[in-house]
Amino acid sequence: MQKVRVDAFSLSLDGFAAGPRQSLQDPLGEGGMALHQWALGTRAFHAAHGGGQQGSTGIDDDFVARSMHNVGAWILGRNMFGPIRGAWPDDTWRGWWGDDPPYHVPVFVLTQHAREPLAMAGGTTFHFVTDGIEAALARARAAAGERDVRIGGGVATVQQYLRARLVDELHLAQVPVLLGAGENLFAGLDLPALGYTVKQHVATPAVTHIVLGRD
Amino acid sequence: MQKVRVDAFSLSLDGFAAGPRQSLQDPLGEGGMALHQWALGTRAFHAAHGGGQQGSTGIDDDFVARSMHNVGAWILGRNMFGPIRGAWPDDTWRGWWGDDPPYHVPVFVLTQHAREPLAMAGGTTFHFVTDGIEAALARARAAAGERDVRIGGGVATVQQYLRARLVDELHLAQVPVLLGAGENLFAGLDLPALGYTVKQHVATPAVTHIVLGRD
Repeated sequence: MQKVRVDAFSLSLDGFAAGPRQSLQDPLGEGGMALHQWALGTRAFHAAHGGGQQGSTGIDDDFVARSMHNVGAWILGRNMFGPIRGAWPDDTWRGWWGDDPPYHVPVFVLTQHAREPLAMAGGTTFHFVTDGIEAALARARAAAGERDVRIGGGVATVQQYLRARLVDELHLAQVPVLLGAGENLFAGLDLPALGYTVKQHVATPAVTHIVLGRD
Repeated sequence: MQKVRVDAFSLSLDGFAAGPRQSLQDPLGEGGMALHQWALGTRAFHAAHGGGQQGSTGIDDDFVARSMHNVGAWILGRNMFGPIRGAWPDDTWRGWWGDDPPYHVPVFVLTQHAREPLAMAGGTTFHFVTDGIEAALARARAAAGERDVRIGGGVATVQQYLRARLVDELHLAQVPVLLGAGENLFAGLDLPALGYTVKQHVATPAVTHIVLGRD
């Protein structure tokens, strides 16, 4: 059955998924890159980025591999697509990821501002959705076919889908660093009241993995 | 050198150290007891509560033992001492812990409402301090002599001492449960801005231990 998933969603100890002051220099906000080091060294990450058989194996690698498995479409918030706010000044901005983004499937970007679809190399096409999270999910579900829909982030987008009880599974990777400020996943969010409980918990030297689901 | 410590401070995955609606029935708020299960089964906890050589050993036990070691005085917030708010109606309330509280040293309780010291069995005396956190710490430091001062909680008390940069070491035990509401340690607290960084990180099947300190 098709699932709606959030995977490999890295958080600081104090709950931040991105640091403050996102910019061209700091796509994940100041200090935000530290949250992703655990994943960057894994074999699954290297394999997905042309690195062949390099990288670590084990639990962290298993979670990265799982995060990439069976994904038929993505949904991203506007800020995860880029640092531009407000209306698109032109079509120059094509995402953070260069000509061949690591998605390779349709990606639905939530925005208030219409824009033509943007076909990239490697099978990624960015579609800009202006009629809300449910419309974006309907389109992503249809595009994904038998496969799952993965919600990439950021926090505001994940929170909206959680509040609407539209996320089936949420894998958090809690990293032992403090950010102190930025985008906090838990701010104002009562996950038990939304029906979420901890389904899996396993820690490695680098990170504590927690999988949440609804009963 | 004498240290000011917070130890075995249990948090939910979403940052809560206590659940909502503290009451006589729920001293740790609704759901709060789930945060402390990792400690209750350890040998150090059993030994401190008359259980002899029962209980688990290993990393969790080591942290519980360390939390009890070399403590010469405690500081507690009013709500950690009891569920009564406002002026003391009488001297009937003597803490949550029965006649022989598990402190066995002087305990300084922060309150707006004066009350005579309360000597309990086993060496615990509760002193009620009405002139603020720095006065309480000065008295606790003097009472502790060569030993350390431990700040027990709750969240509001720990936050006040952290904001004043008066805590030398903070051991957090993050438990894989969600509370969704209650007293959140990280709410409005920028630990890196206060000089705190992660000094130690070790996970067990039950809990992720993190020790924070200032450079």
